[in-house]
Amino acid sequence: MKILALSGSLRAASINSAVLRAAVRLAPPGTTVSLFKSLGQLPLFNPDLESDVPDVVATFQRTVAQSDALIIASPEYAHGVTGTIKNALDWLVGSEAFAGKPVAVLNTSPRAHHADAALRETLKTMAAVVIEAASVTIPLLGAQLDEASMIDSPSLASAISGSLTALRNAILTPTEVVTPLFPLR
Amino acid sequence: MKILALSGSLRAASINSAVLRAAVRLAPPGTTVSLFKSLGQLPLFNPDLESDVPDVVATFQRTVAQSDALIIASPEYAHGVTGTIKNALDWLVGSEAFAGKPVAVLNTSPRAHHADAALRETLKTMAAVVIEAASVTIPLLGAQLDEASMIDSPSLASAISGSLTALRNAILTPTEVVTPLFPLR
Repeated sequence: MKILALSGSLRAASINSAVLRAAVRLAPPGTTVSLFKSLGQLPLFNPDLESDVPDVVATFQRTVAQSDALIIASPEYAHGVTGTIKNALDWLVGSEAFAGKPVAVLNTSPRAHHADAALRETLKTMAAVVIEAASVTIPLLGAQLDEASMIDSPSLASAISGSLTALRNAILTPTEVVTPLFPLR
Repeated sequence: MKILALSGSLRAASINSAVLRAAVRLAPPGTTVSLFKSLGQLPLFNPDLESDVPDVVATFQRTVAQSDALIIASPEYAHGVTGTIKNALDWLVGSEAFAGKPVAVLNTSPRAHHADAALRETLKTMAAVVIEAASVTIPLLGAQLDEASMIDSPSLASAISGSLTALRNAILTPTEVVTPLFPLR
């Protein structure tokens, strides 16, 4: 089972990217977790280009389509989602491959509820299935940890592994997966 | 007085861009309204670049700083703000020039309340002053109008002019302008 990880931050020292790099190394048996590293190279979404998308967009859409589930970690900027993560999702709205896709939404900042709620609302509107058991809050803001430290921390490693295991279980339980909570617009 | 218009859509036939092009031609006496046309060329926001921003970002930040007010029209994508408008705002979060800036938020789709609410929340968090009298809903979704037709329509032209006049009045009334509703994060 393939799980694709998307970070909503382009900052080199991003805690959200670090937690996803930790997830790559904590992939449960039977799964591989890979981090998509080119979100920053996507052009800004333009509906006029949807019939003939740039190569980097085609690669992104194909990689998402070929994944069994997504795991997203994204910071909150000014009480909103980051432009980077929303732009990535904008390129997927028209993609049928997204419907029914299990998604885990990690939140590394317990105080940041606006972006978390907005991201979930958008994902549900796109007919993704947000897996609540996998969508955990991992308080990391200001922790200055890298992925090695996260993996060495029993509580953090356990939280990340638990999220991935819940996501794997959701992939294995299609009845839970195939009913979108919201229709596509 | 300089009013800068930002469209959250890159689509050539965007109704949001059209309403702003109409606003350019309906600028009330004493004001000029200009549309910033390079939002689509901004790179995705990366905090690591903030100390030495790319030229197009510097131009955008300077143009915003030199404007007395902003008028924003942006569609809703999948119950969220567009990546394009949020990315533009992400580049302004760290800019002191944004604090106290009067902003009008036009909504061309009365059914789209998620993006409108999220955009206002972000603007207020950035210490902009959302001018309610200037932030009007203009039902244009599906209307297939270009800016010339909008200007020819007495009701639409009046709504657009009314927004701009309210924005001008806000610029002229500093007591309303200098108190941010939310602190900067």
